[in-house]
This record gives sequence, C-alpha cells and structure tokens, in this order.
Amino acid sequence: MQTIEVKTKSHPSTVYCGKGAVKQLDHILDGKDVFVVTDKNVYGLYKGFIAENFGGAPVCVLPAGERHKNRTSLFMILDKMLDARVRRNGTLVALGGGVVGDMAGLAASLYMRGVHAVQIPTTLLAQVDSSVGGKTAIDHRGVKNVIGTFYQPEYVVCDPMFLSTLPKRELKCGLGEIVKTGALDAEILDKLERNAERLFDLAFLEEITADCVRFKAGVVEKDECERSGLRKCLNMGHTTGHALELFYGRRSHGEYVLIGMLFESYIAEKLDICAHDHAEELRALIGRVLKRVPHFKNIADAARAALYDKKNQGKNEISLILPAKRGEFAELRLTDEKYVGYIEEIAGGII
Amino acid sequence: MQTIEVKTKSHPSTVYCGKGAVKQLDHILDGKDVFVVTDKNVYGLYKGFIAENFGGAPVCVLPAGERHKNRTSLFMILDKMLDARVRRNGTLVALGGGVVGDMAGLAASLYMRGVHAVQIPTTLLAQVDSSVGGKTAIDHRGVKNVIGTFYQPEYVVCDPMFLSTLPKRELKCGLGEIVKTGALDAEILDKLERNAERLFDLAFLEEITADCVRFKAGVVEKDECERSGLRKCLNMGHTTGHALELFYGRRSHGEYVLIGMLFESYIAEKLDICAHDHAEELRALIGRVLKRVPHFKNIADAARAALYDKKNQGKNEISLILPAKRGEFAELRLTDEKYVGYIEEIAGGII
Repeated sequence: MQTIEVKTKSHPSTVYCGKGAVKQLDHILDGKDVFVVTDKNVYGLYKGFIAENFGGAPVCVLPAGERHKNRTSLFMILDKMLDARVRRNGTLVALGGGVVGDMAGLAASLYMRGVHAVQIPTTLLAQVDSSVGGKTAIDHRGVKNVIGTFYQPEYVVCDPMFLSTLPKRELKCGLGEIVKTGALDAEILDKLERNAERLFDLAFLEEITADCVRFKAGVVEKDECERSGLRKCLNMGHTTGHALELFYGRRSHGEYVLIGMLFESYIAEKLDICAHDHAEELRALIGRVLKRVPHFKNIADAARAALYDKKNQGKNEISLILPAKRGEFAELRLTDEKYVGYIEEIAGGII
Repeated sequence: MQTIEVKTKSHPSTVYCGKGAVKQLDHILDGKDVFVVTDKNVYGLYKGFIAENFGGAPVCVLPAGERHKNRTSLFMILDKMLDARVRRNGTLVALGGGVVGDMAGLAASLYMRGVHAVQIPTTLLAQVDSSVGGKTAIDHRGVKNVIGTFYQPEYVVCDPMFLSTLPKRELKCGLGEIVKTGALDAEILDKLERNAERLFDLAFLEEITADCVRFKAGVVEKDECERSGLRKCLNMGHTTGHALELFYGRRSHGEYVLIGMLFESYIAEKLDICAHDHAEELRALIGRVLKRVPHFKNIADAARAALYDKKNQGKNEISLILPAKRGEFAELRLTDEKYVGYIEEIAGGII
C-alpha cells in the first residue's frame, strides 16, 4: 500500500492506495461520528463490509446510476444528514463509484458549510480519477457537473479489493482515464506500453492506479480550482467525449474519454500540434482498450452539444486539450464551426 | 472611502467602504460578463442604478424576505444563470441585503464550481457583517444556514448611499452586529460609547462600518472556515439570538443578536466569566439600540430550539460565546438542561 499526500491550499488530503488500504479506516474513523452514503448496487455487494466497518452509523442508500446524479439525490443526502442530526464535526463516508463520490462530496461540502469527508471509491474510474482532487458535482438540466464545489476529502481509500467485483466494462471505463494520464505523463505512457498485454490485469491496475493518483495529486496541488489552466490538462479528450456521451449515452464515461481522445488526436496531428508517431502510439493504446470504435450517426449534431460544455469559457469558441510532445499537452481554441467541421471530417474519413 | 483587503487562504477579497464606493464598479466590472441577483424590494428602489451600472446584464429578481432563503430561490438563480448561458469566467453581482447576498453567494460558489462574485450590500447589517467573510447559505427544513459554503467574493462594495433608503428598523438590525463587534474589540466599544447619542446617525454609521469590516477581516483571515475556533467569536449572542429568532420570529436578526447578547451577558456574569461593570456597559449599549426588551412567553421552549442550532457541535451540549474582559471573549459549553435553566431564570428574574 502507498500513501500519497495531496497538499492543496484549501485542505490537505491523504490517499491510501493498494492492497490493505481499507485497514486504514480503523484509525481514520476512530472516535468519529460517521454518516455513510452509497448506492443500491454497492450496498447490495458490500452490506457486510458496511456493517463491519461503520458499525451502527446511518447509511443513505441512493438509487444507482448517472441519471440520479441530480438535485433530488443531493437533497436526499442532506435531508438524511439532518434526520441523523449530523453535526459540523461529523464525517461523511462516500462508498461507491464516481457518481456517489461526486454527490456525497458535494453534500459534505454544503452541510453546515462542510463536514469531514472520506472517499472510498469502489470503481477503477473513481480510484484513478474522480475520488482524488476534490471536484464534487451534480448534473442539472442536461449539463454535466454544472453545480458543484471544490472540496478536498480528508482521506481517500483506494483498495483493489473492490475491483474484483467489477465487470470488464467498468475496468474499460477506468482505463479511459488511465490512458489519458499516459498522454500527459511520459513515464506512465511507457509503463502502459510495456504492459500493453495486461492492461485489464488487476495486479497491473493496482500499480498503475497509484501512479495516476500521484500524477493527479501533483496537478491538483498546483491548480486546485482550475484557475491557472494547468488542471485543465486533466480534461484531455473530455470536450469531445462529454459531447458524444451526452448525445449518444449508453457507453461509459471512460470509453467516451478514449473516443474523445481519438478524435482530438487527429485534430492535434492535422494542426501539427502533435507528431504523427506520438498520435499513432496514443491511438494504438486507445485501440487496446476500446477494441473497436462505433459508428456515430449525425456526429455534427453531437459535436454541437460540446459547445454547451461548461468547460468552454469563451463564447462561440471551444477549448480542446490536445496531446503535443510526449508527456506534454497544448490548449487549442477553435471557433464552433471549425470544431464541428473537424469532427465531421474525422468521422467521415477515418473511422 | 477606505479599501480593506481580506487576505484569506482560499481567495483574497477587496472591500471598498464609504462614500463613492460604488464608483469602483466601473473598474471592477470592466469587460466582465455580469449576471445580477437582487430581490423585489431592492429592484423597486434601484432599477435606475441597475440599468446605469450593469447595462444590459441579465437580472434575477428574487422574492424578498428570509422565508424565501431556500432551495427554490437558490435553483431559481442557478436556472437563470444557465438560461443566460453564464460561463465559468462570468461575474455574479449580488445587490441586496444579507438574504440576497447569502443565496447569491452560494449560487456563485456552486455554478460551474465557482464564478466570480461581487457583493453590493444594501443594508447596514449586510455591509457591516454578512457581505464580508465569504459565508454563503440557505435555510433548510427550519434550520438556519444549514446548507452553504465558504466562498470569498472578489469585491465587496459598501456604499452608504444605500443606507439612506433604509427604515430605522433596518439600522437597528445592523447595529446589532456593530454592538457585537464592540463586545469583541475594545477600541470599537470605546467609539460606540463616545458616540452613544448618534448611533443611528448615517455619518457615524459610515465610519463604524469600516471599523467593523476591518475587525471582521482580521478574524476571517486567521480562521476562514471556522475551524480553529477564532471565527466563532463572531457568533457572540447568536446561539440564544438564533433560537429566539426561530421560535418567535417577527423581530430582525440584529435585534435578536442584541437580545441574545443581553441574556448571555447575564450568564457570563453569573459564572464569573465577565465582570459586572463590563456586562453592565454592554447592556447599556444594547439598551441604547433596543430601547425595550420584549417579554417572551414559553422561553424554555424557545431556548430548547437553540439545541438544534448548527453551531453546536457536541451532542447534548450547547456552545456559547460570552463576553469576558473588555475586547475578549470566552467559549462556554453547557449541558442542554443547564442552558435552558439559565435562560428561564434570567427571563424570570431580570427582564
């Protein structure tokens, strides 16, 4: 097990990563007033774990799935916290995937202007990405994560024991963010390429998770609230990915990130931001995870959905985080029309 | 006009205080995408000011009053921001009293995880207290400010021009927090005593507002998120005040703060935390503002309401911030029963 410190300005965060991480809960929760948030799926699988680790603590069981990442679920948590008379020095434990973590994190940041938060991510995606860094959110009126806060959990417990119950689709989803991290960090990219045959191997995933968390911690420490621009690098693939995810649904977030990276790698290459060889090596890795890229009907309409993406600050302009040299990225701003044109062209020509 | 910097860890805040402060809006809002939040009362009085200073910016007009400080109003702001396609680099301007400021501040902290916020407090209470320091909130299920964030506005513009349209009751309300500040700062107390005859005089209020803001800035800089305990001092009078406010309503927040301070000064004296002379001098000042203290029926029930106050962290225990020596305070924890007993005794014996 590794211990990774995320030293942000607002509040430091300690991430325990690897086999046996859950044993840290003993000291983390010792003497604390605990309130647990999870969802139906996780509750079904880990009822015993919850009883064993959180004793008689109140448990709020949310309906499962991204479509419940909304105001109703948020207020379900807040109301149950009030019912349970949670105080300001209470500790909210979020046990689940990214949706649970994002919503519970938001509730923790809002209830009495902030109680202690502990994240126990149970999916690969959440372990490798969303549980670390303090982004919390709900979706609202079709806009992803448009209501949220930056709020660091005090502890994050990433234990591979949870990965063993995950379907392959969930591993694929987490690998989306892992490959993205590879595009931002040359050492992680090397490791992914060396292990291209065992990307879905749990032992390998345990190791690479810690690497990705460490990389993300470094970024978040420098730009906690996504103000300087650095933290934006974590959005590589997300502009196009989010747009397609919103428009087509069905596939997982991580798969859409990979599809987004694929499209954007062609834009980067076309505009000489990224050399052909590097773009190809990223696409090869993406192919390892995705196997095949689906055909998207009406992709221009889907691309237009990206224009509403909240990450895009300027009006009538879209921002893309593109791979540049190995381990480096570049931000590109495109007019709406140009962006839609590129996406159409790439979809027509290559995939 | 004075410029007061609030140097918090999360985000610095600049407060312009005094005549002509609104002129700073020219440079504050230059080139910014502005979204205005206000309420019906303020909109009625300052339609011209809004048109002049915020041009064609979208304006969200909330229903007026503390009973609308709720989730419905919060989502009204957020929805209008979405409708107006406010981006992450947009600027929310809160024009109004404490209720508008608290809700608009919360919306600003949540929308896309935080847009720029500018507070233009139009009441004495908001100028002297709530607009500075970054506390945002809504009430929920009868609990005051139970959902909120700490989020520093970039600018606060405290201009006395707004005070001229305020009824005396509103000045009384602001004086509640001013007298409270006097109980925490000996120089401010001296100034209040020297000016006891002109407490309601607008020229005096302009001067003392800057003093109170500077005092609060010092506290907030040291303990932004009310963690170390120091910021709690600002809650003097609030435990009992909030409880009575919740139970009896009608009177303003600031009046209840004064009534709370009155009750708590007797507790402080009784327990030898505060000398008789100092308690008397505070009560004399409170009397100057309140004139007469009403008779409260069933005060034990009202006091019990304090036990649900969110500031009270321990279970079956209540925390009071009491005056100690001049310019100093002490935190006292009492069991629920003892607290209710004291309040009953004081109400019966003295008032």
